[in-house]
Amino acid sequence: MNRDASQSPQRPPTPKSVLQVGTEIRVRYCECDPMNVAHHSVYPIWFEMGRTELLRASGRTYREFEEAGIFLAVVSLSIKYKRPAKYDDLLTLITRLRDVGHVKIEHTYELRRGDDVLATGESTLACLDREGRARPLPELLRAGIGGRAAS
Amino acid sequence: MNRDASQSPQRPPTPKSVLQVGTEIRVRYCECDPMNVAHHSVYPIWFEMGRTELLRASGRTYREFEEAGIFLAVVSLSIKYKRPAKYDDLLTLITRLRDVGHVKIEHTYELRRGDDVLATGESTLACLDREGRARPLPELLRAGIGGRAAS
Amino acid sequence: MNRDASQSPQRPPTPKSVLQVGTEIRVRYCECDPMNVAHHSVYPIWFEMGRTELLRASGRTYREFEEAGIFLAVVSLSIKYKRPAKYDDLLTLITRLRDVGHVKIEHTYELRRGDDVLATGESTLACLDREGRARPLPELLRAGIGGRAAS
Amino acid sequence: MNRDASQSPQRPPTPKSVLQVGTEIRVRYCECDPMNVAHHSVYPIWFEMGRTELLRASGRTYREFEEAGIFLAVVSLSIKYKRPAKYDDLLTLITRLRDVGHVKIEHTYELRRGDDVLATGESTLACLDREGRARPLPELLRAGIGGRAAS
Repeated sequence: MNRDASQSPQRPPTPKSVLQVGTEIRVRYCECDPMNVAHHSVYPIWFEMGRTELLRASGRTYREFEEAGIFLAVVSLSIKYKRPAKYDDLLTLITRLRDVGHVKIEHTYELRRGDDVLATGESTLACLDREGRARPLPELLRAGIGGRAAS
Repeated sequence: MNRDASQSPQRPPTPKSVLQVGTEIRVRYCECDPMNVAHHSVYPIWFEMGRTELLRASGRTYREFEEAGIFLAVVSLSIKYKRPAKYDDLLTLITRLRDVGHVKIEHTYELRRGDDVLATGESTLACLDREGRARPLPELLRAGIGGRAAS
Repeated sequence: MNRDASQSPQRPPTPKSVLQVGTEIRVRYCECDPMNVAHHSVYPIWFEMGRTELLRASGRTYREFEEAGIFLAVVSLSIKYKRPAKYDDLLTLITRLRDVGHVKIEHTYELRRGDDVLATGESTLACLDREGRARPLPELLRAGIGGRAAS
Repeated sequence: MNRDASQSPQRPPTPKSVLQVGTEIRVRYCECDPMNVAHHSVYPIWFEMGRTELLRASGRTYREFEEAGIFLAVVSLSIKYKRPAKYDDLLTLITRLRDVGHVKIEHTYELRRGDDVLATGESTLACLDREGRARPLPELLRAGIGGRAAS
């Protein structure tokens, strides 16, 4: 779970490779539609929360990256919806780092309610500078979130 | 454009096959994120608007289907993001019907700003009853939105 | 905080009066706009989360109410925005029950980041049946969330 | 309606005072909740669209203001919800400029479906610079959107 990582008063002194993190998600009322289930457009938002927590678990935050002028933009996304999520469900999202390249990062996602897998997904992000141009992922980021994945 | 179709006071007497529709989309401020571009989670919402207008152009509305206990749920979705959309951009979304099966419908999407293609996507929807169980697409729906696609 | 209440495996045997609850909220990336702060339309969503947790802390869930055909609809809302919230901020929302009438419930809200008050708000909800008609708040609900407030 | 204003290929050469504008809004599926009505958090988004079109009708765009480092932030908002809006409803939002001060602008809103008033609202915005500090509304803006209101 993301609790300890997200609220630890002291941050780890050096980034470490974390390849997978679980994040608890409580389904909000406004996220549900007239079919009485979470709308499919909410899943990309949850996946983004998963990436945020994966990075935090590595000892960094995405907020720090943006403050330093390093942006990660989604360039592709795909999702398979298997079972609906309902209002007030307490879900677990497993976010995994699949690959880190020169400019791009790939993640996969598994959304669960207990033992049931509700959805799976994958995304590719590209690293951009303040002007929106592709730039190499900084060494720090590559070490922090992907050192082991690259080996 | 979807204007005439969406606001025609008299509805066509019989459904007709419409395989493609263009919908104008004005990017809302709240749809944009700190990178100053439309957030990637908004594109599935726009695609859903495109499907709504494609059905309306065929002489039916999705609202009527739900009132009759016929639901269409997204079971898979994929998107490629090529160029960012910005606040207040006036975009055109091309929504195409690709295939209509026994239970499922496939659409493709192309989001444009002028001649630039900003994103492409595809989705598969399944037909469900009020209890969320798969059910055959009604003949009416298949004739209305897909008769020609199946040939 | 809402942790214990929301995840307690055993629910309290009888509803109890809880007049105030604190809920932790992590600001999501997609909730922030090009001004780099949480968009003002997100605050009503957070307030709704606060009401959900206040009810849960009383031993009930809003989901149970809806399943029993009891709906609570917002009829008025006002918010004062004092300082911006930023992406990844960890906020605390204090939700208080102000009054419970025959048909309506009033809440107040205070959103904080540490000692700073970022926003305050208040809302009135009306109790509706499945057809959207006003109906008296059930005794159970009045006892559960407002017994003490009415005295 | 906002059609002509929003799509006019040639912009008026000088800003003019426009004190009221009507904007058509089609209720999106994802904007509706399990009660089968538009969620109350969507109304502030629609109000913002109304402000965007009011400014456009005056010969300016909010996008230009932000590009010039002039930001308008909501500092207070209140809404009364009278009747629900449903999926696919075609609504008309009347946005009115109520007052323009040294730093703040006040608007009022009326959301209609045909002759029915679904909701009313009001908001106050403050003018900020890039650093988020209050600054006087530029003369240009005051002339463009509020010259007549101040008289």
